[in-house]
Amino acid sequence: MLTRIDHIGIACRDLEATVDFYSRAYGFEVFHTEVNQEQGVREAMLRINGTDDGGSSYLQLLEPIQEDSAVAKWLAKNGEGVHHIAFGTADVDGDSEAIRDKGVRVLYDEPRRGSMDSRITFLHPKDCHGVLTELVTSATPGDQER
Amino acid sequence: MLTRIDHIGIACRDLEATVDFYSRAYGFEVFHTEVNQEQGVREAMLRINGTDDGGSSYLQLLEPIQEDSAVAKWLAKNGEGVHHIAFGTADVDGDSEAIRDKGVRVLYDEPRRGSMDSRITFLHPKDCHGVLTELVTSATPGDQER
Repeated sequence: MLTRIDHIGIACRDLEATVDFYSRAYGFEVFHTEVNQEQGVREAMLRINGTDDGGSSYLQLLEPIQEDSAVAKWLAKNGEGVHHIAFGTADVDGDSEAIRDKGVRVLYDEPRRGSMDSRITFLHPKDCHGVLTELVTSATPGDQER
Repeated sequence: MLTRIDHIGIACRDLEATVDFYSRAYGFEVFHTEVNQEQGVREAMLRINGTDDGGSSYLQLLEPIQEDSAVAKWLAKNGEGVHHIAFGTADVDGDSEAIRDKGVRVLYDEPRRGSMDSRITFLHPKDCHGVLTELVTSATPGDQER
């Protein structure tokens, strides 16, 4: 069961400049940074609010570090902007299977590692009315209580 | 102070088909529907979760009802997908003024009416690293306690 908007993934060309914009304009602070070699990005998570399933909602700012990464290709085509949205669930395995059974293409055979040791998968945007959609189960126990 | 992700605005060509997708694939339910003549759209709000500022996070599905509306033009250029993101605040007037003072273009001189009698304004996407960004103060008192 998808119980929250976990994050909005935003592709940018310069992570520091984009973090600086969100800090300066809105006062948002960096909660976590990491490099995800598998996804070919470095990223900053800005925590915006807590959610009533015990989780949080974040902005995820993504800068490609490899020219052949999916985010780099997306940026070259679209420019900076919203790259994907992510729903939080306590059971990314079960939910992705159930969604696949409804005819939506799930991009990974098995969930992979996402931000902050979460487990994630993606749904094909053409099956989701144009929206690249991620499902995420947080590594934080408090995010999985429901 | 921006205290939550209030909603993600998603442009679609067929509101009923898109509502049906979100219901069928994820179990999300329609919380509210309305026509906003000023914005030239009809819309469905799907409530996803509550937030720790006393508000909620929604998906806002938008179908243009006028060919010259901003959403219709956006759809013609981009196809279906994420149109904007919105942050909730108890004080859209004060926050939009403070953000304008930081050099970000605010698209309305005064906030206008948004979904569910909220008061909204938009920030220019070119000043926000490509993201059309809305600020919203809910009409529901519980959303304004912080």
